[in-house]
Amino acid sequence: MENVRLTILGCGSALPTRRNFPSAQLLEMRGKQFLLDCGEGTQIRLRQMKISDTRLGHIFISHLHGDHCFGLIGLISTFGMLNRTADLHIHAHPDLERLLKPFIEYFCSDVPFKILFHPINPSKHALVYEDRSLSVWSIPLKHRVPTCGYLFEEKPKERHIIREMIDFYRVPVAWMRRIKQGEDYVTEEGERVPNQRLTTAADPPKRFAYCSDTAYNEQMVPLIAGVDCLYHEATFAESELVRAGKTLHCTARQTAEIARLAGVKKLILGHYSARYPDHQMIYEEAKAVFPHVVLGEDMKTYEF
Amino acid sequence: MENVRLTILGCGSALPTRRNFPSAQLLEMRGKQFLLDCGEGTQIRLRQMKISDTRLGHIFISHLHGDHCFGLIGLISTFGMLNRTADLHIHAHPDLERLLKPFIEYFCSDVPFKILFHPINPSKHALVYEDRSLSVWSIPLKHRVPTCGYLFEEKPKERHIIREMIDFYRVPVAWMRRIKQGEDYVTEEGERVPNQRLTTAADPPKRFAYCSDTAYNEQMVPLIAGVDCLYHEATFAESELVRAGKTLHCTARQTAEIARLAGVKKLILGHYSARYPDHQMIYEEAKAVFPHVVLGEDMKTYEF
Repeated sequence: MENVRLTILGCGSALPTRRNFPSAQLLEMRGKQFLLDCGEGTQIRLRQMKISDTRLGHIFISHLHGDHCFGLIGLISTFGMLNRTADLHIHAHPDLERLLKPFIEYFCSDVPFKILFHPINPSKHALVYEDRSLSVWSIPLKHRVPTCGYLFEEKPKERHIIREMIDFYRVPVAWMRRIKQGEDYVTEEGERVPNQRLTTAADPPKRFAYCSDTAYNEQMVPLIAGVDCLYHEATFAESELVRAGKTLHCTARQTAEIARLAGVKKLILGHYSARYPDHQMIYEEAKAVFPHVVLGEDMKTYEF
Repeated sequence: MENVRLTILGCGSALPTRRNFPSAQLLEMRGKQFLLDCGEGTQIRLRQMKISDTRLGHIFISHLHGDHCFGLIGLISTFGMLNRTADLHIHAHPDLERLLKPFIEYFCSDVPFKILFHPINPSKHALVYEDRSLSVWSIPLKHRVPTCGYLFEEKPKERHIIREMIDFYRVPVAWMRRIKQGEDYVTEEGERVPNQRLTTAADPPKRFAYCSDTAYNEQMVPLIAGVDCLYHEATFAESELVRAGKTLHCTARQTAEIARLAGVKKLILGHYSARYPDHQMIYEEAKAVFPHVVLGEDMKTYEF
């Protein structure tokens, strides 16, 4: 079974720290790369980690606060210098295109690839991207400006063939795709072999949800129920509950409560306020509510 | 004698590397801080180095390539969050104001300080800033877009008083400033004490020149003659001489030749191409022409 890989490039909040860059993460799923948010320094982190970015075709921006998008112009400019030729798709609130275009025209007029903006309506739960193997949905969030998270969902996969049975029934190669998709095999003599005799169940589709930035928001729970992995902001410890309410961010306990209600398999915390020299308190407060939790860290890769 | 402190925040070129961020450096001179260029990640470096930025009032941008200015919007945004109130002055080619203003209005409309743009004509050698203790001059450079370096020059300083002689002649406090400025002391009885008996010579004014990016350009030599420190780009080793010529950058040897012709006291190299895993060759090629040379490094402070 092929794992999904999530590499956190930055899980700080608005003020960068010694440890954390602003928000950005690279999701590798079904052989493709997707960038989620693109704070300042994203291209620096990619190069520090020697991540090849040739498969990165789509960038999803959660909202237009600087710590989630100021790295875009540098990334585009660098892609130009590296002679990228594949189209680059940017999914974001429509204001981004208007703001970024004059910059792109001035600084990146000679990039040898197309930049295509896809407007997102952050207040809708909608399908925003789809290919052969996966779908991406927007998740409306509650923040000071229009904001959405993103749900990545694999499409149903093929069943696993049982090699010995395929050999036993001498199934021709031409039949294999249909059998993997669940069809019974019918021999040339008209004998029907039930699919269950030839295959085992497909791997369940993987799902990943990215939710940053947001106030405590139970409305997202049905949209992310049971996901394999949830990255959710946990900007503050509980001592800053009032500030979290005012700034429309979450405390670690609130974040864990959302994970618990949604029954997610794994919760990764991030978007830490710069006020914390370490994140032990954030971790402990979340762990008390929801056990399957880890602290996100810059330049670390998580597999699920 | 108070030293000038130069902290390199980034001395990479257009493509960042594991080691080097794009161009930015902080100059501390006569109790003030000045930022020279502001590539992506400048605010991250400042915070990584725990540099207090409260005395930073003026930013000088050499030219409008992304690796010299993409960090401005993040820096301004962060200054806003830190509740800076002092005016921020940006000296740059006039296109920058036009490009950056819509960004500032969208992302930083609520910053509690004024941002003042001062247009620079990079093709002129002109006084671009002046205060009580120092002057800044533009240095026209040869690059693919209008570019200038900057020369920081202390104004003449006060002479050092000889404490014993001041006591001996019982010079009143009210006279001290005039004596430091070179006047003779005249006692109440009308006796004239020559200034040389009361003081020793002032420290010579310090001068620093920042020259990046540029092709080999002997026209700058008279403008930077004898400076205490020259930071000059050395993008390439000699093996890339042709590419240096095409892209209007310098090889290390060319850079050292400029330093030799100008008789500078110290040369710091930087703006290294990302193609070099280390900079030993750059250093050796420069050293062969000009001995007083050091390799610039990110997050290192140089005093002179």
